[in-house]
Amino acid sequence: MENYITNIPFKLASRENHPENTIIRVGDVNIGEGLTLIAGPCAVESETALFELAQKVKASGASILRGGAFKPRTSPYDFQGIGKEGIEILVKVKELTGMPVVSEIVDATDIELFRDIDILQIGSRNMQNFSLLKAVGRTDKAVLLKRGYASTYEDFLLAAEYILAEGNSKVILCERGIRSFENYTRNTLDINAIPALHELTHLPVIADPSHSTGRSSLVRPASLAAVAAGADGLIIEVHQEPQNALSDGAQAVTPEQFDEIASTAKNIREIAYEK
Amino acid sequence: MENYITNIPFKLASRENHPENTIIRVGDVNIGEGLTLIAGPCAVESETALFELAQKVKASGASILRGGAFKPRTSPYDFQGIGKEGIEILVKVKELTGMPVVSEIVDATDIELFRDIDILQIGSRNMQNFSLLKAVGRTDKAVLLKRGYASTYEDFLLAAEYILAEGNSKVILCERGIRSFENYTRNTLDINAIPALHELTHLPVIADPSHSTGRSSLVRPASLAAVAAGADGLIIEVHQEPQNALSDGAQAVTPEQFDEIASTAKNIREIAYEK
Amino acid sequence: MENYITNIPFKLASRENHPENTIIRVGDVNIGEGLTLIAGPCAVESETALFELAQKVKASGASILRGGAFKPRTSPYDFQGIGKEGIEILVKVKELTGMPVVSEIVDATDIELFRDIDILQIGSRNMQNFSLLKAVGRTDKAVLLKRGYASTYEDFLLAAEYILAEGNSKVILCERGIRSFENYTRNTLDINAIPALHELTHLPVIADPSHSTGRSSLVRPASLAAVAAGADGLIIEVHQEPQNALSDGAQAVTPEQFDEIASTAKNIREIAYEK
Amino acid sequence: MENYITNIPFKLASRENHPENTIIRVGDVNIGEGLTLIAGPCAVESETALFELAQKVKASGASILRGGAFKPRTSPYDFQGIGKEGIEILVKVKELTGMPVVSEIVDATDIELFRDIDILQIGSRNMQNFSLLKAVGRTDKAVLLKRGYASTYEDFLLAAEYILAEGNSKVILCERGIRSFENYTRNTLDINAIPALHELTHLPVIADPSHSTGRSSLVRPASLAAVAAGADGLIIEVHQEPQNALSDGAQAVTPEQFDEIASTAKNIREIAYEK
Repeated sequence: MENYITNIPFKLASRENHPENTIIRVGDVNIGEGLTLIAGPCAVESETALFELAQKVKASGASILRGGAFKPRTSPYDFQGIGKEGIEILVKVKELTGMPVVSEIVDATDIELFRDIDILQIGSRNMQNFSLLKAVGRTDKAVLLKRGYASTYEDFLLAAEYILAEGNSKVILCERGIRSFENYTRNTLDINAIPALHELTHLPVIADPSHSTGRSSLVRPASLAAVAAGADGLIIEVHQEPQNALSDGAQAVTPEQFDEIASTAKNIREIAYEK
Repeated sequence: MENYITNIPFKLASRENHPENTIIRVGDVNIGEGLTLIAGPCAVESETALFELAQKVKASGASILRGGAFKPRTSPYDFQGIGKEGIEILVKVKELTGMPVVSEIVDATDIELFRDIDILQIGSRNMQNFSLLKAVGRTDKAVLLKRGYASTYEDFLLAAEYILAEGNSKVILCERGIRSFENYTRNTLDINAIPALHELTHLPVIADPSHSTGRSSLVRPASLAAVAAGADGLIIEVHQEPQNALSDGAQAVTPEQFDEIASTAKNIREIAYEK
Repeated sequence: MENYITNIPFKLASRENHPENTIIRVGDVNIGEGLTLIAGPCAVESETALFELAQKVKASGASILRGGAFKPRTSPYDFQGIGKEGIEILVKVKELTGMPVVSEIVDATDIELFRDIDILQIGSRNMQNFSLLKAVGRTDKAVLLKRGYASTYEDFLLAAEYILAEGNSKVILCERGIRSFENYTRNTLDINAIPALHELTHLPVIADPSHSTGRSSLVRPASLAAVAAGADGLIIEVHQEPQNALSDGAQAVTPEQFDEIASTAKNIREIAYEK
Repeated sequence: MENYITNIPFKLASRENHPENTIIRVGDVNIGEGLTLIAGPCAVESETALFELAQKVKASGASILRGGAFKPRTSPYDFQGIGKEGIEILVKVKELTGMPVVSEIVDATDIELFRDIDILQIGSRNMQNFSLLKAVGRTDKAVLLKRGYASTYEDFLLAAEYILAEGNSKVILCERGIRSFENYTRNTLDINAIPALHELTHLPVIADPSHSTGRSSLVRPASLAAVAAGADGLIIEVHQEPQNALSDGAQAVTPEQFDEIASTAKNIREIAYEK
């Protein structure tokens, strides 16, 4: 274990080779400096709904808007997102609110379609889709790389290395829960990953308390825990009416809940890391 | 998932049947009310060292002293603790400092030997040693029950139920990390367990950031995360000279590090749960 | 990985230190030589039922009879076995049939009660109950040690080492399934464990296809697979009327099914390992 | 658990909806009828070497040739296969030997390049790359779908469903080991998966004893176990000089070892499933 750091074969991602933290600028947001809050619905549903929600989460302190247009779902019969239309809505709401936007890309042939999306998200199931990693590595966009649900830290950093090796240094790592034997929660938030990754790499590390719990009642404690563990940001699913969400309503919080989480999270960040 | 709570077969441990939190009084400490800090060495080594350390952690806010006398080790050739002598040292330091003490019991025939120990700890490997659970269930002592490293929440609460069913209601649950595929850390702290167990049971839930990370550099972030997730307490391995510890030095923090963790943890507790 | 063998800290269990296979004689059965079949009910229910079943499985090729008297159950409210009476029934049926018997021991204080039981079984949940391991290590009885459901091969062999280090060399290892993320089966039979353990140790290795699948429909393929992987034996739950079993009926096979499994297993053993 | 089958949301893959086994014809091989042996090197290295090896494994009973041209590797710095040239070599050796060939596809834009490859392999890391699944689902080629290393049977069958739902019914499932806490082996062969998948689906199920063990010494027992568990085939890495292989030499067997495995496997198949 002692030699874990020096033996692992990632280079560009390694803190040994690059001691200072990487800060990634997206719009006027500096990811990796202070606490960045990313919020929005699991899936984009309509422009009106997204615009209203964006205003609310922005007022609560979110600086980046999330929204899924292409949804990789375990079953081919589940709602797959509204696709191209979703991207267009995201771009409109970005213009209306001034918030940079992040959305998941599942196919390299969609890169042109994502030209006005600020951050390309690679989902957990595609973390080792090396063709896609290389493709986003050839863009100049920030990439939000989610940890595979059964990936080690080494696998995760080597996936980041695929992007970095193509010349794109703007990689944000996201711990989103691993698969374990426990079924009460959808996934098991590996909170150790946050400080461990900070030891191993200079890239920013954020957490997804929505997927890593799968239960809205656990989103607050998981969010606060991730911040207390040193996360550089949170990406949280927020929905005006979680019970009516087209996707993943069980893990969404309301704008009111998000407001309280955001404010408490900022206080914890200050106490624990910015004294 | 919706019916997880109502379908599970634990009764006395269930929050459904007992909505209010259980508070367990040990000495003049109320576990389950505010944040309880338990600190001390992995293994008791000498009276002098333990007394000095106890004074320091007490000054930093620890209200209970931990120390292992009987150490269940994976290998029969590893240091197994100093046994009876360790118990005697713990009792002396308890008298000198006024701090209640907790120590691990591995054999029901030792119960008489533990008569002046305040809290009987059941370790992870013995979580389903039902003979031992029943034996401590027949005492009137508080029991610190550590989660088995591959136990579900249901298994864990059913193990508690074995103790409760014998008439002893003073069970403190402890999340101490689960075994996963990740080897950078010794175990994977299941932070979700803390709020999830609070949903399922009225018993106090504490966390062990030492075993659940196995690396002293991760103890601070894991401790703060557990408190932010709502833990009722922390049990932390502290050693004056971690590099010279007879057992588990790699995960011990110094008294100075403990002091800062304790103080920041108390602040997080206040901000997140006692506003 | 190359140095896994030489680095691990078990000594008496190691094949490096003891290249030839250990053969354990119980009654007139040589465990570790050819294929040994152990069969019987999960829990002993009555003398008549056990005697009838024993005659059937003996006729099908089983040479050792299994039967649980003390059943460690996850819930305190589940059937816990008939205890002392179960042991007495086992001993009577042993006398009537001449078959050696194996039964699980859960408490060191029961050793005297097990004096006429030929093989002491340590269950998965007690694999790291080191007090119990030491206690059976001080007897001269054969011990059937089941792998903990989240134990590595190293943990498993170190548990065996606890018994060996007390002077008892008659340890039979049993792969009984590990806990994974898959829930269709009760456990995941780690078939690799059989040849891997044969590489690492000289002790006999058997498999439990009943617990490692949890579904009677999978017992035949799992049994045949274990034999094809080189298992020295099988321990199979057989019940005259699985649907009426007091414990674990879902994974029991009928005597007729056992008869076919036993015969096919012996043929596979011959083709694959005794040419 | 009882309702697992009827509750899971796959339709076209379900045995309930399609009780008879699916047999997939590739060249003059019927996959799903008897035992199909697929063999060849991890990575295609040269035409001469592949041709020689193909002749040997064909003589030993292999009816399909495997060979990787595009190798998805965890690290971007590891050997990634020889790409297009490897495909060309495979096609030449197919013509010379008459053996159908299988090779891994990692990018939908390569489908035209694979026009003379008989079976498109989807690797474990791409099992939930839904874009790629849909793309191969729109071809008329057989698809060898490897189980994701942390996928449940349900996830696996839903991935197959993505292919089936596009109109391609020629899906061969491959158990290749899951990730567990055990590190002596590269992966843990989930032998239960073979009969369990046969219960749940009508599609053929084969096993990969090379990746599921990661150690050449375990390939024979794992192969025989998979056949004894009812596998419809095996896909085995064979190399003339494993110690000089460009990729995965540690898990390759020699042609001589393959010959013995093939012959013993066929005998086990006959004894256990074709009486």
